[in-house]
Order: sequence, then structure tokens, then C-alpha cells
Amino acid sequence: MESGTIYTGALDIGGTKTLAAIIDGSGTILEKYEWKTRIDDYDAHFERCGGELCRLAENSGIRIADLAGIGINFPGMMDSEKGILVHAPNAGWRNLPVRDFFKTILKHPNIIVGNDVDACAIGEEYFGLGSQYRRYIWITISTGIGSAFMIDGKIYQGAGTFAGEAGHLKVEYDKPRKCSCGQYGCMQAYASGPAIKAIVQEKIEADPGFGLAFKNANLSADAIGCETLARSGNKTALDIYRDAAEYLARGIGYCVNILNPKAIILGGGVARALDIFEKDLFTALKKYTVEPSLKGLEIKYTRLGYEAALIGAAASVLAKL
Amino acid sequence: MESGTIYTGALDIGGTKTLAAIIDGSGTILEKYEWKTRIDDYDAHFERCGGELCRLAENSGIRIADLAGIGINFPGMMDSEKGILVHAPNAGWRNLPVRDFFKTILKHPNIIVGNDVDACAIGEEYFGLGSQYRRYIWITISTGIGSAFMIDGKIYQGAGTFAGEAGHLKVEYDKPRKCSCGQYGCMQAYASGPAIKAIVQEKIEADPGFGLAFKNANLSADAIGCETLARSGNKTALDIYRDAAEYLARGIGYCVNILNPKAIILGGGVARALDIFEKDLFTALKKYTVEPSLKGLEIKYTRLGYEAALIGAAASVLAKL
Repeated sequence: MESGTIYTGALDIGGTKTLAAIIDGSGTILEKYEWKTRIDDYDAHFERCGGELCRLAENSGIRIADLAGIGINFPGMMDSEKGILVHAPNAGWRNLPVRDFFKTILKHPNIIVGNDVDACAIGEEYFGLGSQYRRYIWITISTGIGSAFMIDGKIYQGAGTFAGEAGHLKVEYDKPRKCSCGQYGCMQAYASGPAIKAIVQEKIEADPGFGLAFKNANLSADAIGCETLARSGNKTALDIYRDAAEYLARGIGYCVNILNPKAIILGGGVARALDIFEKDLFTALKKYTVEPSLKGLEIKYTRLGYEAALIGAAASVLAKL
Repeated sequence: MESGTIYTGALDIGGTKTLAAIIDGSGTILEKYEWKTRIDDYDAHFERCGGELCRLAENSGIRIADLAGIGINFPGMMDSEKGILVHAPNAGWRNLPVRDFFKTILKHPNIIVGNDVDACAIGEEYFGLGSQYRRYIWITISTGIGSAFMIDGKIYQGAGTFAGEAGHLKVEYDKPRKCSCGQYGCMQAYASGPAIKAIVQEKIEADPGFGLAFKNANLSADAIGCETLARSGNKTALDIYRDAAEYLARGIGYCVNILNPKAIILGGGVARALDIFEKDLFTALKKYTVEPSLKGLEIKYTRLGYEAALIGAAASVLAKL
């Protein structure tokens, strides 16, 4: 521990995996641990989150009490003011007073709880591309799709705390796919990781040759495998990303027409393939957006990569100091 | 002219008609004149706007120089900072330095030029329902459809000045109707006044009995006539408004999912029929929005009625004093 340096604790609790870390004021990760989220028993999982963070602090030679704060992300709708996790659909958690819980188990007064997508945007603002833009929209395209709208360095808050549901923008009305939210035609049902996996598997059923392409390249038949095949020039895999780009353009198009942002910053596993589908995305956006808004628009992949949300949890603490 | 009272000049230049007025600081119209917009000759039309305003001022016993300012709305995209009308699609006007023009002909230093939809939202904020809400979206449903997003009493400005294009949100992808903007499937092509008129005429072609209903009631076969028939219980007319509500719900749904506003305030001729289609609108919104955002949402018809934009032009002056 260097004197004069700020340290924060960070927990990124996702529906699939959880990351814990000690991060310094410049966004550098000192110690990090990753493990599977136990969605069946949140009490036990949150207890373990506390334990892992204490262990990481100890390994870094920093006492929990010396952390400037601890930022904790949850994969769902948050009432950050009250410190309550309202609903995390993928985990099935509802109405948990998470801030009080972590205050008690970590014995730290400064616990900042928030939504994982919002954390990404705050992280981008502090340590990534965000400071270049006064108005931008962060969109995570991962297991789910979520968004945060940043104005002058702050996340826009709606009337409740339920803004940024870009994943549930309807992008198809004709025989729409069912989304995990229960509604139909959501962008998340067409362009998220699981959606691309489902489409890959439908294409394999219709064309066993496409399945062979995965087998021959020793790839699993999911979004990541499809990305690799697309990069090798496989036509069906490229078509799948082109279709995803069409649907992303519809949802992004709504954001552009309503908000005329300077930039869209994308994060999450699917967004990593942006270079594959960027051209298709802009071609489709031309059909769906008013010309002057599109003209100045930049679409970028996050500078923070895989750890955007984790670094964002640390940035959430810095933002409130 | 009462001493101590503020007076403003207001011009609401629409694609079809123009209104000029002298309005006091409480939003009361002292004198008002309305005439047809000459879209074929904007120079002549703007000259006349100046002349009419001078005449109204004279009739009110107020000198133009004593007006606190003159607010002027245009029906299109504005660069309000530079005082330029960028593009008014319905009128066909492009890149006109309107502020300088009116400064010269009116010999008044404080000319506030802006978009007519933005003016409505500012008017609602000053003299209508707006002050009740910290976050709301104004949507005009008239010859065109446009929107303004109000945060803490101010209109949100995008990266350019091109936010609020709700009319060109895509609400249909399957055999979409062509919009006057040249794109397909825009909300404006399904729920604006001219769109409803076109649909009425298609229905009449398919069912001459529907045409007779207009004739028998001595109504013109347009959106206003259709509203009257719907109020009298005509099933086809009610269906037309139900369909419009479905498409409005799609567009409004995007706004709700992205921004979680407290309210949507509707203005314009079509919105006057809100009581007819309000139930259908909320039923459709349930399919298209995340539940907690919809739960707290209010949808209201403007308190300013037909003169919302004109009163808004006056409010635009007050907002900058």
C-alpha cells in the first residue's frame, strides 16, 4: 500500500460469474478473483463475496477499513438511493436490501451499490473513452443487453431508476422471438449472446454442414464460436452477425432519433465482434435514423474490455468521493 | 399597455398555417392573427410575418421596441444557437439564417428562434402541466410528429440539435408505409393527421359504406372527420384510432424503455382524440415496455390546446430573460 494512493474494493456480481478486486485510483487492478455466481442461494453467495474481498485486501496489504469505498454491481434493476436490488431477472432475485447487507458483513460505511451496466458507463467515463464525449449511450451486449445514457459525465436517471432498458426495445413485430423477460421482439432476443447461440443452433438444424464447420474448427456452437467462424470467412456465420447488426441498428436507431448522442460505446462479449458487423450496422442505421443525427455519430468498442464492469464498480466509488 | 407587465411577440410558422400574437407574461394572448403559410415563397411569407406582428403590436398599443423579445417557431430542424433553420421538410426550406432576417425586418435585438415542438414543451413548462414533472416527453401529433425531452425544466439538447425525432422512430418493418421523410415505417406514417387521412381513404375504397358514414354526417374524410365518427361509435373509425394507438405505443414504448419518464404530454390535432384511444394505448404499452417504467407513467393531453406552440413561442422568450 502506497501512502497517498486511493484504493477501492470492487465486486461485479453477474448472473453467471462474479469478480472481486482491489483497484487503485488510476483504475489498475491489484488483485482479482473470479468465480461462479450461486444464483440459488444469494445469502451464501453474498457472504462469500465479502470473504473474497477481505482475502484480496489482505493479499494487497490493505485493510478493508482503509478502502475509500466498495463498489458493488448487480445484474438488474437497482434502487441505488435506497440501496435495494429491485429485480435481477436472470438470477431471479427480488427486493434485496443489498447495501445494508454488505455494510454489515464488510463493516465499511461507504458501500456504493449499482447496476452493472451503469457501472460500465461510469468506468468508461473515468478510465476509457467517455471523457471525449458530452452525450453518449453505453450499451452492453452480453448475456443480456442493457444501456446507460451519459450526459455531461453523469448517468441520466429516469423518473424511477428504470431507464436504460435498451435490451427490451422492440425490434421485430412480425413473428417476434420471445425474450427472457416474457415479452416478444426485444433486441435482447436477437442480438445478445444467448440469442446468437439459439440462432446458430437453428441454422445448424437446417444445415448440418454449418454444424460441421464448428466441429472441424473445434469450436462450440455459440456466439463466440460463430464469431471465430465469421472471422475465418464462413458465410452463414457472417450472415448471423449481419442479421444481429440489422436488429442492433433498429434499437440503436431509436436511441439516435430520440437523443442525437455523439457516440454509442459498446461493451460485452458480442460487442467485441464490432469490427465484423460495423459496416452492416452503419448501412442499416441509414435506413432507420434521421440523416443529420447519424452523420456525426461515432460507434466504438469500450476501451476497458472484459473488465469494464469491474473497473466501473471502482469508478462508482471515485465518482462519489 | 400596463406598466410593469412583460409583453412578448410570438410567431408560430407552421407548414400549413402561421399564427402571430402579442402575449403577456402570464401567457394571455392579447391579439392574434392566423393565415395560410406561403411555402412557395418564404421571403414574402417572412416579410408578411413581420408586418402582421407590427400590426398586432400597434392594435395592442405596444411598440415593437417595448416587447421583451419575439419568439419565432419554425416547423423543422433548427440550429438555434446560430439562428439557422436547417431543414423544414414539409415546407421544403433549407439553411435559412432566419434570426438575422427577423432581427433586420423587426428591428428588435432579442429574437428567439426555435423548433415548434420544442416551443410547445417550453410553453407547457411555463403555463401548462410541465412544472408538475421533472422528466417528461412532449410529443406533437399533428401534420408531422415531433418530440422534445424535458429534464428539470430544460429541453434536452443532443450532440447536434437533432434530438426529438420521435416521428421517425420506426414502428413497422413488415411492408412498412413510406414516410414523407423518404424512409419507411416511421411513426409519422401511421399516426399523424395525414397518415390517418390516408388510412381513412383506403378503408373507404375497400368499404364504400364507411364513405357513406362520412357523407351522411357531413364530415370530411380525414383525421378530424374520423375522430367525430369514432365518437359516435362507428366501428371502422374506432378501429383506425385503435391501430394508430398500437403504433403510437410502439414509438412511445421506445421512449419509456430508454428514458423512464414520469409523463408523456401529447399535443396536436390527433392527440386531442386521446380520450378515444387512451385505453388501447395503455393496453399496447403493456406489451412494449418494462413493467416498473410503465407503472408510474402518466400520459396527458396538453393544457394549452390548439395554441400550445404559439404560447410556447412567448415562453421561449421568457425562458431566456
